[in-house]
Amino acid sequence: MINIGIVGASGYTARELLLILQRHPHVNVVRGTSRQLNATPLAESHPGLAKWRELSFESFDVDDFVDAGVQCAFTCLPHAASAEIVKQLLQHDIKVVDFSADYRLNDVSTFENWYQAKHPDPDRVGSIPYGLPELFREKIKSANLVANPGCFPTSAILPLAPPLQDGLIETDNIIVDSKSGVSGAGRNPKPNLHYPEANESVAAYSIGTHRHAPEIEHLLKRSTNKDANITFTPHLIPMNRGILSTIYLQPAGEANIDTITESIASHYRDEPFIRLRDTPPRTSDVTHTNFCDIHVAKNRDNVILVSAIDNLVKGASGAAVQNFNLMFDFPETMGLV
Amino acid sequence: MINIGIVGASGYTARELLLILQRHPHVNVVRGTSRQLNATPLAESHPGLAKWRELSFESFDVDDFVDAGVQCAFTCLPHAASAEIVKQLLQHDIKVVDFSADYRLNDVSTFENWYQAKHPDPDRVGSIPYGLPELFREKIKSANLVANPGCFPTSAILPLAPPLQDGLIETDNIIVDSKSGVSGAGRNPKPNLHYPEANESVAAYSIGTHRHAPEIEHLLKRSTNKDANITFTPHLIPMNRGILSTIYLQPAGEANIDTITESIASHYRDEPFIRLRDTPPRTSDVTHTNFCDIHVAKNRDNVILVSAIDNLVKGASGAAVQNFNLMFDFPETMGLV
Amino acid sequence: MINIGIVGASGYTARELLLILQRHPHVNVVRGTSRQLNATPLAESHPGLAKWRELSFESFDVDDFVDAGVQCAFTCLPHAASAEIVKQLLQHDIKVVDFSADYRLNDVSTFENWYQAKHPDPDRVGSIPYGLPELFREKIKSANLVANPGCFPTSAILPLAPPLQDGLIETDNIIVDSKSGVSGAGRNPKPNLHYPEANESVAAYSIGTHRHAPEIEHLLKRSTNKDANITFTPHLIPMNRGILSTIYLQPAGEANIDTITESIASHYRDEPFIRLRDTPPRTSDVTHTNFCDIHVAKNRDNVILVSAIDNLVKGASGAAVQNFNLMFDFPETMGLV
Amino acid sequence: MINIGIVGASGYTARELLLILQRHPHVNVVRGTSRQLNATPLAESHPGLAKWRELSFESFDVDDFVDAGVQCAFTCLPHAASAEIVKQLLQHDIKVVDFSADYRLNDVSTFENWYQAKHPDPDRVGSIPYGLPELFREKIKSANLVANPGCFPTSAILPLAPPLQDGLIETDNIIVDSKSGVSGAGRNPKPNLHYPEANESVAAYSIGTHRHAPEIEHLLKRSTNKDANITFTPHLIPMNRGILSTIYLQPAGEANIDTITESIASHYRDEPFIRLRDTPPRTSDVTHTNFCDIHVAKNRDNVILVSAIDNLVKGASGAAVQNFNLMFDFPETMGLV
Repeated sequence: MINIGIVGASGYTARELLLILQRHPHVNVVRGTSRQLNATPLAESHPGLAKWRELSFESFDVDDFVDAGVQCAFTCLPHAASAEIVKQLLQHDIKVVDFSADYRLNDVSTFENWYQAKHPDPDRVGSIPYGLPELFREKIKSANLVANPGCFPTSAILPLAPPLQDGLIETDNIIVDSKSGVSGAGRNPKPNLHYPEANESVAAYSIGTHRHAPEIEHLLKRSTNKDANITFTPHLIPMNRGILSTIYLQPAGEANIDTITESIASHYRDEPFIRLRDTPPRTSDVTHTNFCDIHVAKNRDNVILVSAIDNLVKGASGAAVQNFNLMFDFPETMGLV
Repeated sequence: MINIGIVGASGYTARELLLILQRHPHVNVVRGTSRQLNATPLAESHPGLAKWRELSFESFDVDDFVDAGVQCAFTCLPHAASAEIVKQLLQHDIKVVDFSADYRLNDVSTFENWYQAKHPDPDRVGSIPYGLPELFREKIKSANLVANPGCFPTSAILPLAPPLQDGLIETDNIIVDSKSGVSGAGRNPKPNLHYPEANESVAAYSIGTHRHAPEIEHLLKRSTNKDANITFTPHLIPMNRGILSTIYLQPAGEANIDTITESIASHYRDEPFIRLRDTPPRTSDVTHTNFCDIHVAKNRDNVILVSAIDNLVKGASGAAVQNFNLMFDFPETMGLV
Repeated sequence: MINIGIVGASGYTARELLLILQRHPHVNVVRGTSRQLNATPLAESHPGLAKWRELSFESFDVDDFVDAGVQCAFTCLPHAASAEIVKQLLQHDIKVVDFSADYRLNDVSTFENWYQAKHPDPDRVGSIPYGLPELFREKIKSANLVANPGCFPTSAILPLAPPLQDGLIETDNIIVDSKSGVSGAGRNPKPNLHYPEANESVAAYSIGTHRHAPEIEHLLKRSTNKDANITFTPHLIPMNRGILSTIYLQPAGEANIDTITESIASHYRDEPFIRLRDTPPRTSDVTHTNFCDIHVAKNRDNVILVSAIDNLVKGASGAAVQNFNLMFDFPETMGLV
Repeated sequence: MINIGIVGASGYTARELLLILQRHPHVNVVRGTSRQLNATPLAESHPGLAKWRELSFESFDVDDFVDAGVQCAFTCLPHAASAEIVKQLLQHDIKVVDFSADYRLNDVSTFENWYQAKHPDPDRVGSIPYGLPELFREKIKSANLVANPGCFPTSAILPLAPPLQDGLIETDNIIVDSKSGVSGAGRNPKPNLHYPEANESVAAYSIGTHRHAPEIEHLLKRSTNKDANITFTPHLIPMNRGILSTIYLQPAGEANIDTITESIASHYRDEPFIRLRDTPPRTSDVTHTNFCDIHVAKNRDNVILVSAIDNLVKGASGAAVQNFNLMFDFPETMGLV
């Protein structure tokens, strides 16, 4: 049994993590922290939870984590706040899967520019494995800290990396048009997420300014060693969960839909969570699963990739458990099927 | 042209009122107030509006209403706050349709008990016509102030009043099980109305404690002179608008489904907005309309009434315009079809 | 490992059953039948499924089930069609959990009257345990055939049985007002279930005529030996899954909210899947779980029970696995947390 | 008063047309045809309708239209079937607004290739005005027949035409990523539009093969005399109505976001139904209105146009009434605000 602590355990990604972990036969959640919900039981915030219902939220204290024997922490905190705590955990030899953006990008300046915050742990930036096992499996296995990927980047990087690495696509103008369920915006009420506002409506947001744009570019660079110019537009969809990304490509040179399909197929042939689909996937095909479904289509000479994930599972907590399994030498799919 | 002022013009009922009024050929909205949105144009808060887009929200000032020539004010404010302003408007000979609960109940003590607030205008309570034209038409015609009905009470009182008045139903235990869309809870974001919380879920709330329960009892008493004991349970439904009320009755004496149906049919034979339906109505049959659909069914000897309205139209702003038409001697359906 | 066969494996309850069974460590699904989908892989019909994806739908053939070593069959077929096949399975010593209504009622004549069909296996009717372990656990343990409960009856019988058995409630007029997600209506497209028709709307249906009404009455009789007169009204809610039942009671004699609460609490004290809640449950608290949440409230002297289940889990396939676990001597919660 | 006949009056676009026409002060609907619903009143199919409720659906008969004094017909029929009837109506001097695709494209061969049907009225193809008054107003005014636009093309052509005509954008690769509510798929139940299938899910469909792709290209050519290469991908969104199109452009030469914005602003300065927005529009800003909202954004050098319409109003029946107003010399916005 591995003892687990969750830092920032009141939100949607933490809830999904708890629901997945309760099906994992070799973990025990011993700590869940939350500043606002201090001393209330987890069950009040997460009524669907069956295990660990009587555990109470606490304020974070690294010594308490040590005393409780926490071996792995999942940190679900805002950017910058997270790295502050990750540092402490690592100092006490607690392995960490970090849900924040703090350790995802390739360099500190891009982080500080896009997140408008000073990085509390700059030395580690750029050297921490990004938690997409399909691309960085070996590094994850031996890591003490993994940067769990963003939801949109997962949906974009997984289909793009193989053809980009194989030199099959033009890199100067790749368009990623993404559609996300509302849970991706978090659990705090906001005017535009008020039910009658978000329901029966669709809108684009953060056009040209979303922080997942540099993350997609940096990680494509890190995984393929190619510079790609990404135009990323997220949209808010009236549904709870799921991301669909529609990606518009121009094949390079002799490449075409067949060679691009073959590139994706061969890179992911043995991946348990990636499925190449003959027809366009619906997000409901993958919600409540850790699958990433990919479909390849075309319009005249252009190639269109469509990917579907559950933003809370493969886009967050499922990926986190997949990374945890690698870090602790469990079968990679444990708890995830 | 009647000059209109709307006090508290930023919420959903005010928005619906504006959308209805822009189809009314004889009104001009000249003032819209909002404390928070002061100086911003109405169009920012209500993008779907076609007329009066450039009008700016202001703080309420009764002298300014007088200067602007406001002849009728619609007050869309919280309880108690509303009566404070209604008093001023009436003093300046401005007619008022009040959306709050301040003038609905039959006595001040019930108001102060259920609303936990001192009533700012106690002398008028009990003498102001309740804005259901189907039951109080003549009084509304000559009124300077009308208490616009609550949404749930509209859905309960309209089907219940005829058989109650005709002595066809037992009065000791009438059950009103109501289902409402989320706009009924207003425009302010709250945790339980956050999209991922309200979506894909249904729940009862305020069981035995909802303020519309005494309103239903008081107005049934006022319209039929009968005391009826109401058990009222509202439910939150994942949809934007619409109320369905399922009402469980026991026929009195020889009464049965046929006599109860006939009672409703004959009372409302000439009503333009009440439709007796042969099959159970869906709320979508009446959304964006001022109709109240009623269906009568039975289970063994029990009789079940089902009513459907749009909470924002017949349950609020459509009724308000219907009342306005009566107060200003326009055809009752003007702007409402 | 127990070999499982699913008869009628293309619908929503079969899908949910497969998703639950793939988390059960001691089962293997070896057959899934479907007339229409013959020879297509299960994955086409159920894209979210991770295991048994390559298994193909077949036409049902009991000899083939025997050859495949099927030890337990789950039959998800329309009424009457189901009993035809259940008979054959039992003759070949295959245990059965039957999702149809064929073996639920207490007598053949009520079945034939409400279902307008001749019963193909009348001799077994009335003697087959009803699959609510909370009420019939011992009989289920030794059964070869279990009648898996209807979704609405589960939501009504679980909260009602304890106070009814303890003589705490009047039996002449119990009102069950139920709200169900659309998956309860099955997977076949119908005009009223077409997305733009069912979305943004709520309606009552089958008032006084729904087949789950006699099921509730019969099983309350069987579990408590009391005759109760139920008025049952189902409503269609725009959400995929979940049932909320609001149940209106009059306490008998000296009974009140406290004694009724205590009755429910004490009957279900050790039940793993029943939770007595202090606040009204939302269906989203229990969706994707096997929980039945119960809340007790009052209005003046009336008592109101609110129950929430997932119609596809505790209302169908979760209960089925719970029954399977009892029949095959596995821990009752296996695969269900 | 203009006498109106609606051919194919049972679907969603016909319903929306009736709801708009009942607010138009100078029309009277005298005929509504439907093969399946023959002899049933319109109110059964369209419960929200207030006027013309007692009118019964009939089978289409052109002589009956003449006898009834129909002056304008709206034809809401499938492709090819529509042109057969349009021919007859025009022969009898009845003006027509045709909702089908039959008269939209520039040539018969493209029609027959994409619609896989022989055109019943080939001689008129290419000469009939396309019903976007913003681009073809003068021709519509004098027309006996107008080809009412497709919903997706409306959302794409309106924002694209000005910068394309002004030579501000590269024409070789314009990407139109569109998101549509489910009513756009019509009223006939289908498996993928069954509520539990379409709800809580998003998917792309008809990638590279949707019939609105050639319509966008043909009408851009006709309105701007430029050949543009369009990649069009529609997506199904879980909401009833609304289309959002996100359009990815590369500015030509010296053009940039400012010149493109100015081009759109100046072309549509006096248009009553086009609004240039400073922020990305939500579809809910325009649903139940005839507005087309347009926003211009950028990502590095790329320009992104976002447009929002109600597919049933500006995308169908609102545009049809706008065209009718022009054809019959009524104010263009009559009935539409």
